[in-house]
Amino acid sequence: MNLICLQENLKRALNITGRIIGRNLTLPILNNILLIIDNNKLKISSTNLEIGINTWVPGKIETKGGITVPSKIIGDFINNLPNKKIEIKTKNNQLILKCEKLKAVLNGLPVDDYPIIPKIKDKPIIKISSNILKDSFSQVVEMASLSESRPEISGILMKFNNKSIKLAATDSFRLGEKNIEVESKIEKENSVIIPQRTIQELIRILSEKEDGSEQEVDIILSNNQILFDLGNTQIISRLIDGQYPDYQQIIPIKTQTQVVVDKKELINNIKIASLFSGKTNDIKIIIEPTKSSLEISSKNADIGENKSQIKAEIKGGKLEVFFNYRYLLDGLNNIFSDKVEIGLNDGLKPVLIRPIGDIDYTYIIMPIRV
Amino acid sequence: MNLICLQENLKRALNITGRIIGRNLTLPILNNILLIIDNNKLKISSTNLEIGINTWVPGKIETKGGITVPSKIIGDFINNLPNKKIEIKTKNNQLILKCEKLKAVLNGLPVDDYPIIPKIKDKPIIKISSNILKDSFSQVVEMASLSESRPEISGILMKFNNKSIKLAATDSFRLGEKNIEVESKIEKENSVIIPQRTIQELIRILSEKEDGSEQEVDIILSNNQILFDLGNTQIISRLIDGQYPDYQQIIPIKTQTQVVVDKKELINNIKIASLFSGKTNDIKIIIEPTKSSLEISSKNADIGENKSQIKAEIKGGKLEVFFNYRYLLDGLNNIFSDKVEIGLNDGLKPVLIRPIGDIDYTYIIMPIRV
Repeated sequence: MNLICLQENLKRALNITGRIIGRNLTLPILNNILLIIDNNKLKISSTNLEIGINTWVPGKIETKGGITVPSKIIGDFINNLPNKKIEIKTKNNQLILKCEKLKAVLNGLPVDDYPIIPKIKDKPIIKISSNILKDSFSQVVEMASLSESRPEISGILMKFNNKSIKLAATDSFRLGEKNIEVESKIEKENSVIIPQRTIQELIRILSEKEDGSEQEVDIILSNNQILFDLGNTQIISRLIDGQYPDYQQIIPIKTQTQVVVDKKELINNIKIASLFSGKTNDIKIIIEPTKSSLEISSKNADIGENKSQIKAEIKGGKLEVFFNYRYLLDGLNNIFSDKVEIGLNDGLKPVLIRPIGDIDYTYIIMPIRV
Repeated sequence: MNLICLQENLKRALNITGRIIGRNLTLPILNNILLIIDNNKLKISSTNLEIGINTWVPGKIETKGGITVPSKIIGDFINNLPNKKIEIKTKNNQLILKCEKLKAVLNGLPVDDYPIIPKIKDKPIIKISSNILKDSFSQVVEMASLSESRPEISGILMKFNNKSIKLAATDSFRLGEKNIEVESKIEKENSVIIPQRTIQELIRILSEKEDGSEQEVDIILSNNQILFDLGNTQIISRLIDGQYPDYQQIIPIKTQTQVVVDKKELINNIKIASLFSGKTNDIKIIIEPTKSSLEISSKNADIGENKSQIKAEIKGGKLEVFFNYRYLLDGLNNIFSDKVEIGLNDGLKPVLIRPIGDIDYTYIIMPIRV
């Protein structure tokens, strides 16, 4: 392999591929990234055996070939170089990098030892705008379960319907659901569960696009794998086996009490109450229709107690309900309207939180029983 | 105690006092700060038994009194409030805080249980500009030894001469010395060793002044204590007992080889070389008078190797010297001129690094023997 490319292009590619690489002591080649000439470009790939990333760097290619080298060391080295031309060469399992009066020799491992990242050649199930995809996944990704005991809810559900995509994630204490209307018809209905880490990496890569411009992302499903094809970069991930729970049944169709309240004020008062909450992160909210207000309070025998009121438009009766403040904040922080609507049936049934004027996002939270 | 003050003033004071408070399980009152009415202002104090901080908050004082409450919880609470009036009251060892429609009750402990922060009434040894004090201490503070085995070099030497102050810090591998010329005559020569943490807190408090304006700091010495009096805030610290080593003898008076080099370029190439350095953080510098250049290199059997050249004006002969790159960077990062001068005698004797055109700062580094 022998080529010349620009530092900023190489840096961008190493940043994209580097993040999924951890520190693997049992299988050292998993600390490495793969550099290989492909289609007259430099292709850089990384994998953690669950997710694979490919990205292509333009350059002046002299001779073909490839190598694998430690991701961290090549990333740190390239990051510290000026934005000039870099000469890249392989020789006896070593990678030689030259930039102006700087020269480095990195010890590598042969290409054949690198784990295979599956190649997916199927037709896309859908093309979708990168910004819509990023924003929609962002609204649900953190609600997935962190526990390994129920793998099917450790991922994000992506359900392809005829003219829409539904995203959902839950840890059984709260649930986020996002509906995306799509213009093109989806030919085959399908439903997959994608690992949370894959979606986090996808969001990160889509967020780091320098110009922030809109682009199309092809989504391709194949043999228990999903491919997000951004053109210059591909993210390939295994899917999670299993049946996603039928969560629709817990979304209340009707609610007896509806509250409309300023989102920022609510978030702020919940944060203050959180300082005094107990081990279960519990805070109390009293809905007071006669005063047109919410009372938010918390109490801790060691620390002390706290109480605040905020104005609210309320339809329905007085209600007292306890929440884990973290779950409340997670939902509210993913709502982008100034006001939110909260729908309740009693102090124990699932509570519905929605942005005002946007039926495409739904957040459900289970009250705490105290 | 009963008073009204503004959130932003209280927040500033809690931020200043809060940082030295750790999490103390054996003596819970050390997690607290002291609030007490003093001179018709609210005085807030904190101590970790080595450093004490007092700061005063203006307010409308109704009744006198005091209390101690956990620093973290009051700090977090006040931080989350809007910048409005806050009503502060004590009742039965509880602190009651009210701000608009928010109310909190914090469990406290009585004032008498709080450790005494010494009061120092002596006359200042010197008045000095806050910015000069901050910048000068910043240039040496990190060179103090972190090891407890030689307490006298775990602090910063502050030596008051007739018309100047000398600051010095060393860990025996490298040394930083700063000379401050003062306008007013210092009546009594004196020399003290101040704990590193005290100086770090002083720098932090001086850096956080919102307007960045110059002010006078009174320095007062008394009974193995030092007081930095900023007017509205005081930092009181114990001093370190012991004899500071006679470091002057290791500063070379003459050097056989002098190198003048661009500081930014040198730092950058050292950083790159550091990626390939071994367990002792060693990098090699070859001074090449015939080529008017420095060659910076490093080698690691596992990772690979690296070499670079930068231009330099050199007087004297060729020399090969090994450094711990961290110590080199620490010195160079505290130099504010574009070019630096490096003076050497051979590859093993102490090496002198100085800003060009500033004889008030001296950095000495011991080469590594390989």
